[in-house]
Amino acid sequence: MTDDGLWFEDLKIGMTFRSGEVVVDPAQVRSFAAEFDPQPFHLDDAAARASRFGGLVASGWHTAAITMKLLVGSELRIAGGLIGLGVDELAWPAPVRPGDVLHAESQVLDSRPSRSGAPRGVVVMRTTTLNQEGTVVQQMTAKLLVPRRPVPDERAAIPSPS
Amino acid sequence: MTDDGLWFEDLKIGMTFRSGEVVVDPAQVRSFAAEFDPQPFHLDDAAARASRFGGLVASGWHTAAITMKLLVGSELRIAGGLIGLGVDELAWPAPVRPGDVLHAESQVLDSRPSRSGAPRGVVVMRTTTLNQEGTVVQQMTAKLLVPRRPVPDERAAIPSPS
Repeated sequence: MTDDGLWFEDLKIGMTFRSGEVVVDPAQVRSFAAEFDPQPFHLDDAAARASRFGGLVASGWHTAAITMKLLVGSELRIAGGLIGLGVDELAWPAPVRPGDVLHAESQVLDSRPSRSGAPRGVVVMRTTTLNQEGTVVQQMTAKLLVPRRPVPDERAAIPSPS
Repeated sequence: MTDDGLWFEDLKIGMTFRSGEVVVDPAQVRSFAAEFDPQPFHLDDAAARASRFGGLVASGWHTAAITMKLLVGSELRIAGGLIGLGVDELAWPAPVRPGDVLHAESQVLDSRPSRSGAPRGVVVMRTTTLNQEGTVVQQMTAKLLVPRRPVPDERAAIPSPS
């Protein structure tokens, strides 16, 4: 890895990355939900206790956004930025509660060069978000667009005639 | 549909739902990104112009959150709330720019009763988010947990012996 971050060539299948930790701020659980997912089990203690969740839970989209924050701050620092083409799987197997401490663990599942020959590739990463008890609260498989390392000298790209 | 919202029995394959519209607030594009996805192409005009996006774009997770807001406010009002078990596909085929006007269109793709016999089912919905030009900015297929309509009188659930 250079100061520019990771290039397509650096990301090998099986490599793993771990993020730092973040505390799920109770005030943010409510403010995120009030803006984007205004349902009683994300906003109101009494209504949440009476719901299937048995207490206040964060919106799944809040968990997804927190996971992105963890990834952007992690050692998975990709040259040109963390650009998602799309997500193949996104699941929330357990609820996130206010005050939970989350971190993310990522693994490279696949890596393929651009079919068009453009100087980039697609890297498939599985990112698992866990709470302080090791319970998986989000599972995501995402396709990232990753640029190839630029050739420092054009002559190096031309095979020698030997 | 009753005042309680839609039950499992109400959601038939092929049914469509349309949301209202929301303007993507330029200040919110920056504040969302600053909190959850602090990358230059979401935060800084000059850096965004120099990036592959050619200008400031919203985080895909912001688009996902806005889509949830549109769904919660739409006619797709499910009894007990809009509870996602997970997402099978989530893609951002075109960028969302500050000031864009988005709406969501949803369609029921599949509907299956709980295998355990519990009084609920899983409904698979495809939700497309479009901008003011009709360009698809997000495509999502999600599994929703939907309760069955409660039986008003227990005797109605017991087959008559005739």
